[in-house]
Amino acid sequence: MRLEKQLRERLATIQGLKKEFFARAQERLDQLTKPRGSLGHLEEIARRYVAMVENVRPRIREKIIYTFAGDHGVTAEGVSAYPKEVTSQMVYNFLRQGAAINVLAGHAGAKVVVVDIGVDHSFDLQEGLVLRKVARGTGNIARGPAMSREQALQAIFVGLEMADHAKGRKADLVGTGEMGIGNTTPSSAILSAITGLPVNQVTHRGAGIDDVGLVRKVKIIEKALEVNSPDPKDPLDVLSKVGGFEIAGIAGLIIGCAGHRIPVVVDGFISTAGAMIAVALNPRVREYLFASHKSVEVGHQFMWEYIGQKPILDLSLRLGEGTGAALAMSLIEAAVKILSEMATFAEAGVSEEEK
Amino acid sequence: MRLEKQLRERLATIQGLKKEFFARAQERLDQLTKPRGSLGHLEEIARRYVAMVENVRPRIREKIIYTFAGDHGVTAEGVSAYPKEVTSQMVYNFLRQGAAINVLAGHAGAKVVVVDIGVDHSFDLQEGLVLRKVARGTGNIARGPAMSREQALQAIFVGLEMADHAKGRKADLVGTGEMGIGNTTPSSAILSAITGLPVNQVTHRGAGIDDVGLVRKVKIIEKALEVNSPDPKDPLDVLSKVGGFEIAGIAGLIIGCAGHRIPVVVDGFISTAGAMIAVALNPRVREYLFASHKSVEVGHQFMWEYIGQKPILDLSLRLGEGTGAALAMSLIEAAVKILSEMATFAEAGVSEEEK
Repeated sequence: MRLEKQLRERLATIQGLKKEFFARAQERLDQLTKPRGSLGHLEEIARRYVAMVENVRPRIREKIIYTFAGDHGVTAEGVSAYPKEVTSQMVYNFLRQGAAINVLAGHAGAKVVVVDIGVDHSFDLQEGLVLRKVARGTGNIARGPAMSREQALQAIFVGLEMADHAKGRKADLVGTGEMGIGNTTPSSAILSAITGLPVNQVTHRGAGIDDVGLVRKVKIIEKALEVNSPDPKDPLDVLSKVGGFEIAGIAGLIIGCAGHRIPVVVDGFISTAGAMIAVALNPRVREYLFASHKSVEVGHQFMWEYIGQKPILDLSLRLGEGTGAALAMSLIEAAVKILSEMATFAEAGVSEEEK
Repeated sequence: MRLEKQLRERLATIQGLKKEFFARAQERLDQLTKPRGSLGHLEEIARRYVAMVENVRPRIREKIIYTFAGDHGVTAEGVSAYPKEVTSQMVYNFLRQGAAINVLAGHAGAKVVVVDIGVDHSFDLQEGLVLRKVARGTGNIARGPAMSREQALQAIFVGLEMADHAKGRKADLVGTGEMGIGNTTPSSAILSAITGLPVNQVTHRGAGIDDVGLVRKVKIIEKALEVNSPDPKDPLDVLSKVGGFEIAGIAGLIIGCAGHRIPVVVDGFISTAGAMIAVALNPRVREYLFASHKSVEVGHQFMWEYIGQKPILDLSLRLGEGTGAALAMSLIEAAVKILSEMATFAEAGVSEEEK
């Protein structure tokens, strides 16, 4: 109950964005040497970024992607195309810079911080890895809860700690990421539990299961919701009963960043499940989120509708790790540079639109 | 006739892509530590890039955007929201690094080469500007041809020369761009002339005309097609009668790059009109093109359908200059880095998919 009270306090610090900053950003955009509104969504991104950081001429220097890794007891039910061991193997791959997230974060100029929040493997302390294991994987949600409410709170606090780390590093933009074999299963369960959408409408192939596997996966998720009956009005109940440690970490990271006014780029299906928990805990959180992309997972669009943000990219990605966030970060930075680096009509001596 | 014969020779050097390289790229992609196909369109981009440059482990170092500037006699009919002088004013803005293309190309690590191919203004020789004026603006297409067939060929050869420049600079990726007040008007005319689509279905607001202006613009384009009756089977006739110098330059750049196996990122509505002329002259050209984005201009989607490429981005842009190409270049580079920088399952000791 102590942690829950502390979480309520953190949630209460989140402030809504001020209209004044949208107006000031718009005023600046309209002075720049381009037809008004001609940069479309980039201008919308620029306005939102300005309002989040309350600075009309911002710069994006420090970018950090937090990739939370956790295992899932539900893999025992055969919901994934990959063996559970791949979670820890991929963590090592992240640390050796061999994964897609390393390549794409590097391309975007972002750092990657890997957080062991619940992997069923003991890692040694090493550069680039934060050891915050809450447990060695979740319980099998087809048979009982993923974790206790206290564990869910502990995992959220790991995410809050990472938000504090981002603030300490003066991060201008944070991305979410995850690794956890089987984790589209709890993500679909969270989506169904919160929105009431039928499981078969929000469940897809994850890393690549076949038709038979998809039917089984739907049944497992239906069973998980039946066995656990999560309370849709209580996001912590949903998270603890059918969630995952990395999903909880992402929810905490997002809540913490919103409190610190650090814009957050939300990655794919699993990250967005974490964002749903955060938004369910305090709807103001949504104002600090950028929707990186629309995933191949059929449920992803319903998540964005719930959150109320429009995805920036639509590249048929379904990888996770933070890869979509890394790609979108570069576009957000481009939008912010427009505000800060372009000449105005007056500076450039260019004639304005004829009225 | 000499130039036309030389153009035929350049067109004849363009070779189709080899299936072998798509297969080799796919083989490499499937060895990398990610679920097969999980990077979606990025993987498609990587395969196509490999086949264009015939190298399975390519690197993108040198990126150049060629921004062709030209004026349009049809501005006398009031088809644009901006005065004609803005074309030359914006060229100066490009050279002083104040425009959106400067900011976005800089963000993507690309150089910008500005080419005066037909601006109604005399520029002094200066760094970053290539002086290749064919004429001081086109004729008013509502009353006669935009240019002679010989001028159209001259302008195409300026583009071919820029492709040779790109080859000399060992460019790994080229982008198209343009500046020319009034140039959505000839672009819609080209689209309608080549595809037979009605003018009112392919004409939009350009830099920002109002409803009354849009009705007038449609009538002017209909008149231009009636007055000039361009032959849809003869792309050079379409280009010279209702085109523009910058559109011709872009067509030439694309033809030249395809001949040199240099991948080209095509920008927005006007650039894609140039790409249509190039593809109409030799359909193999389409294999070397990346479609940067889907513009707000309603006709743009019909252009991409004609060319047969799917736009990478959909950000409601309508600026031109090469801005969409710059944004897409960064994603193409990301896709290529995936091929070259990620670890394989074997290298990383990660278990593969269970069959």
